[in-house]
Amino acid sequence: MLHHDGSPLFVQAPQPTALHFGDEVTIRVRALKNAPIERLLLRICPDGEQFFSEMQCEPTLENAPCQWWQAKLTIHMPVTAYRFLIFARDGVWWYNQSGLHAHTPTDAEDFKLLAEYDAPDWVRSSVFYQIFPDRFADGDPTHNVQTGEYEYHGVQALARRWGEAQSEGLQSMVEFYGGDLQGIGDKLDYLSELGINALYLNPIFSAYSNHRYDVVDYHQVDEHLGGNAALIVLRQALSQRAMRVILDIVPNHCGYLHPWFQSAQVQPDDPFSEFFSFRQHPHDYESWLGVRSLPKLNYRSQALRQTMYASASAIFRIWLQPPFSADGWRVDVANMLARHGKDQLEQEVWQGIRQAVKESNPQAYFLGENFFDGSSQLQGDNLDANMNYAGFTHPLMWWLNGFNVGQHAEPRHVESTVPWRTQALVDTWQAVRAAVPWQIACQQFNLLGSHDTPRFSHWVGNHPELIRLAVTFLMTYVGVPCIYYGDEIGMKGASTHAARNCMEWDTRQWDLELLEFYKKLIALRRTSPALTAGGFQVVLVEENTLGYIRTHEQEILLVIGNRSEQVRPAGALPLALAGLADGMVFAPLFGGEPATVQNSALPLPAQPCGVQVWHWRKAGIAA
Amino acid sequence: MLHHDGSPLFVQAPQPTALHFGDEVTIRVRALKNAPIERLLLRICPDGEQFFSEMQCEPTLENAPCQWWQAKLTIHMPVTAYRFLIFARDGVWWYNQSGLHAHTPTDAEDFKLLAEYDAPDWVRSSVFYQIFPDRFADGDPTHNVQTGEYEYHGVQALARRWGEAQSEGLQSMVEFYGGDLQGIGDKLDYLSELGINALYLNPIFSAYSNHRYDVVDYHQVDEHLGGNAALIVLRQALSQRAMRVILDIVPNHCGYLHPWFQSAQVQPDDPFSEFFSFRQHPHDYESWLGVRSLPKLNYRSQALRQTMYASASAIFRIWLQPPFSADGWRVDVANMLARHGKDQLEQEVWQGIRQAVKESNPQAYFLGENFFDGSSQLQGDNLDANMNYAGFTHPLMWWLNGFNVGQHAEPRHVESTVPWRTQALVDTWQAVRAAVPWQIACQQFNLLGSHDTPRFSHWVGNHPELIRLAVTFLMTYVGVPCIYYGDEIGMKGASTHAARNCMEWDTRQWDLELLEFYKKLIALRRTSPALTAGGFQVVLVEENTLGYIRTHEQEILLVIGNRSEQVRPAGALPLALAGLADGMVFAPLFGGEPATVQNSALPLPAQPCGVQVWHWRKAGIAA
Repeated sequence: MLHHDGSPLFVQAPQPTALHFGDEVTIRVRALKNAPIERLLLRICPDGEQFFSEMQCEPTLENAPCQWWQAKLTIHMPVTAYRFLIFARDGVWWYNQSGLHAHTPTDAEDFKLLAEYDAPDWVRSSVFYQIFPDRFADGDPTHNVQTGEYEYHGVQALARRWGEAQSEGLQSMVEFYGGDLQGIGDKLDYLSELGINALYLNPIFSAYSNHRYDVVDYHQVDEHLGGNAALIVLRQALSQRAMRVILDIVPNHCGYLHPWFQSAQVQPDDPFSEFFSFRQHPHDYESWLGVRSLPKLNYRSQALRQTMYASASAIFRIWLQPPFSADGWRVDVANMLARHGKDQLEQEVWQGIRQAVKESNPQAYFLGENFFDGSSQLQGDNLDANMNYAGFTHPLMWWLNGFNVGQHAEPRHVESTVPWRTQALVDTWQAVRAAVPWQIACQQFNLLGSHDTPRFSHWVGNHPELIRLAVTFLMTYVGVPCIYYGDEIGMKGASTHAARNCMEWDTRQWDLELLEFYKKLIALRRTSPALTAGGFQVVLVEENTLGYIRTHEQEILLVIGNRSEQVRPAGALPLALAGLADGMVFAPLFGGEPATVQNSALPLPAQPCGVQVWHWRKAGIAA
Repeated sequence: MLHHDGSPLFVQAPQPTALHFGDEVTIRVRALKNAPIERLLLRICPDGEQFFSEMQCEPTLENAPCQWWQAKLTIHMPVTAYRFLIFARDGVWWYNQSGLHAHTPTDAEDFKLLAEYDAPDWVRSSVFYQIFPDRFADGDPTHNVQTGEYEYHGVQALARRWGEAQSEGLQSMVEFYGGDLQGIGDKLDYLSELGINALYLNPIFSAYSNHRYDVVDYHQVDEHLGGNAALIVLRQALSQRAMRVILDIVPNHCGYLHPWFQSAQVQPDDPFSEFFSFRQHPHDYESWLGVRSLPKLNYRSQALRQTMYASASAIFRIWLQPPFSADGWRVDVANMLARHGKDQLEQEVWQGIRQAVKESNPQAYFLGENFFDGSSQLQGDNLDANMNYAGFTHPLMWWLNGFNVGQHAEPRHVESTVPWRTQALVDTWQAVRAAVPWQIACQQFNLLGSHDTPRFSHWVGNHPELIRLAVTFLMTYVGVPCIYYGDEIGMKGASTHAARNCMEWDTRQWDLELLEFYKKLIALRRTSPALTAGGFQVVLVEENTLGYIRTHEQEILLVIGNRSEQVRPAGALPLALAGLADGMVFAPLFGGEPATVQNSALPLPAQPCGVQVWHWRKAGIAA
């Protein structure tokens, strides 16, 4: 019946992604011409008081399928929430980010505009690539970990040859394949050719395990990765290619071998004791999910706050500044930071961290790990984005593979054998979008998997068409995509452990067709205004099929995924509400005949299992 | 299929209304025995990390219609949010405060338990009565405002005789009928007999208009109401009857004749200038919705914060302490306080005010005015309740009279002529309940109208049966009821202005049947555990009929309202999910034959327009 989102067709402002106090913004709604709308009002709440303004019809061509309505508002507050009130022939309706409602909703899912918000403007046009440093490429074997170099948890460090099978059990934590920062630098041609323009590196600070979440020195890049010097060299190489890099920081806990903790354990009145929460000194202390090797940092300590983010030389700051000049942080377990029972300090701590980050580098991307609903941290005063497991990855995987959840306690894993409904995918995606401002939604860090999951190809049974479907959704959904190293060449991994295998550099082992597919999609993502700035509308929800449209003034993309082996029959897809005019020609990205909009519908051929993208550009049909 | 709410049948704790850190709580779910549930999990997020525990089936009688499930959790955090994950034969479902969902919802509508929360425990068993002081009773004519005693806005103060018709226009603001605190004290017998045990008084501090929202001295009860001495006398009289009283405070703005503002206007560097926001001194300043006689207070000023709430003798504190010992505050325009464009200071200011209030009187009821969604202030760290226009009054009036909204700007009033759906009422009520913890929902200040609305009888066309329906809903909905003075005797008023008419003390003018009806409902509300502590379930949604049940171990009430002139036909109402067992006998509160549950359904007679309450008590049938 009608549509609005935060994209430039619907929110017109001097700078739609960077709103300022005093800006006049035109809010537009697109409605079907035959919708029974009698009156449309824009509802805002300046300083908490409800205020309506009447929306006006824009002039429209006689044969256009849609009617545009508009009203203006002025930005006065840090967050301007708005929604619409519709008087229709069949009664009144509210329209907010979660859709049309016959009842009166609360304000939680209002559309929202952020003013004076430091958005990192490079993020929206980025395609990220996640690297687990020990496993990507060994650029300088001279500083590799040597077998027996140290003992950790009673296990000797072990040097492995590239590509050897990983150990199981404790040994797997302290075996090293020699990947390092120079290795990443050596492979920038590969990454550039793939189309990547931003890297996310798993932890690189000194630690004893190969994942390095057990950090022992926040001020030092691990010597086995090349040390601080190697990071500076990598930074320069990336800058020459206009590539960005974000680092992984672990402020929730540290390794038990960190000098702070070692010192704190010696005596209770050690200055570092307050960095931790001892239930009973020295052996009973808070740790991450009860893992004793990862003692939890205690943010009641003002000294810790100074060290981590508040002081001028704090850890959160220095790595964002020259000569390292990282482009942002990925914050580990952002969901748990500064939270501990009755001390739920996350609000003040996060505001302090954001301030430190943005003071150090206003263009920093401030990304948090959160497997669950992180929307309370995504309101403009805290994180710029979440690793979007909750709002992208999990629902998609549940749709392709069935619903499941896991945890670190019993029951460890719970799953359903009943297929998850397409509408559930649509609604879960929407629930997360509805809870955050559009400016944030466009920066969400979308991914199919990471070092913390099996490879996504495993979830879809290594089904080639479902892999392509997932990759296409990753590249075309609202937000920015991140590829986990090796996914693009078809690496497999049925567990989190296996997903950390060494990058395969033997091109004979590569899935070259898949790699080409990735390149095509990455190129599309980086050059498409509809994908970097366009609106989002679901246009097709069937038992096994989901279709959505990304809309920009100059370009429209229609994405249709079919998860089943049943062919979706040919037929015309009604697209009037997406504003499509008769005569517009859409080209299929993955081959086939173009289709022309007729009677506000696109005649589509039959579609087997997999994905198709239909593409229209204002200047003509895209190649 | 299943039900849970925060009432004692479902949340079992040492003290369900006052949870403490370390408490073990049993969470119970009631499900239909034939529901296709295979597995039920309780989901919590300790310190932000998702955690599931398996729920266990409780032993159950063979012929009981329901199966209870339970799991335990321990209170560690100020707010424990939880919801349920259901594995059913038809797929997975989530169940939270807004109901069953096939998709994965965000955390916003999780059930929530507040720990270490200072709930005023007298509130749940209270029936409030709102008094507009100038218009309730004149106890001491010697201190009445005299005609010509002062001039306000160029209009002379005018003394009126009790019951005379009010003026129109500006004069109406400064005409006085002589109502005062002694008058209220004189009528305590009347109020006690009615069943009232708590008063809410509109502003009583010194001011020039009769509504007294234009306060000129926060430290002084208006001399025309009897001054501070009269408040002390009233307090003592109320205490003797175990009656409570809450006062109305206006911290968002003051009257322009307040000495602070007068002084601030004289020179820009006056110490009080910072209490206000001058755009251009002295005549251009921020005010409440642009009303120049009500300059807005500026909470960037630390001195203002000290004066209003932070210092030991601050205004928010002193009236809650002896000898005045008010039982709480109703805070005017709580939605707008400390909010002004880029300065949205509400979080820190409200936390300071709450601290002041609870330090002064831990049992104080901290109530805010909010015509809109106030749920962000109802999470346990701020207000104890809202005037529940958004979550009770407006949806009910929209259902009975059609949807409408108004504002202080154009378009002033917008209404729909299409009947508002019963489901919309149910969903709007639920949306507000779903956004707040149950502990707060049970304290919400429900009302049918106030000094800021026409009398509710006007909205329902003075239809006697719809009046009874609304009163019954008021007395039986989740939260505490407040009666606007005179509603109980059938006073009429088609406008906000008319709703401020003098209380009618000529009993010949009273609607005695209505008064008896009120007394019956008030008595029920005050003695019914189902209404003070019971659960809430909607059991019937039809085009013109709404039915809900309030459930307590010892008592069950079924309330059915029919808004139309069409008789609802007789028939059996399925109530298995409400846990009703065959053989339970329900008595109709307003006359008729008892009905007995058969096959988990209650056979109901035909019901004409209006309301019926069906009542079961464990000890036998209530009178």
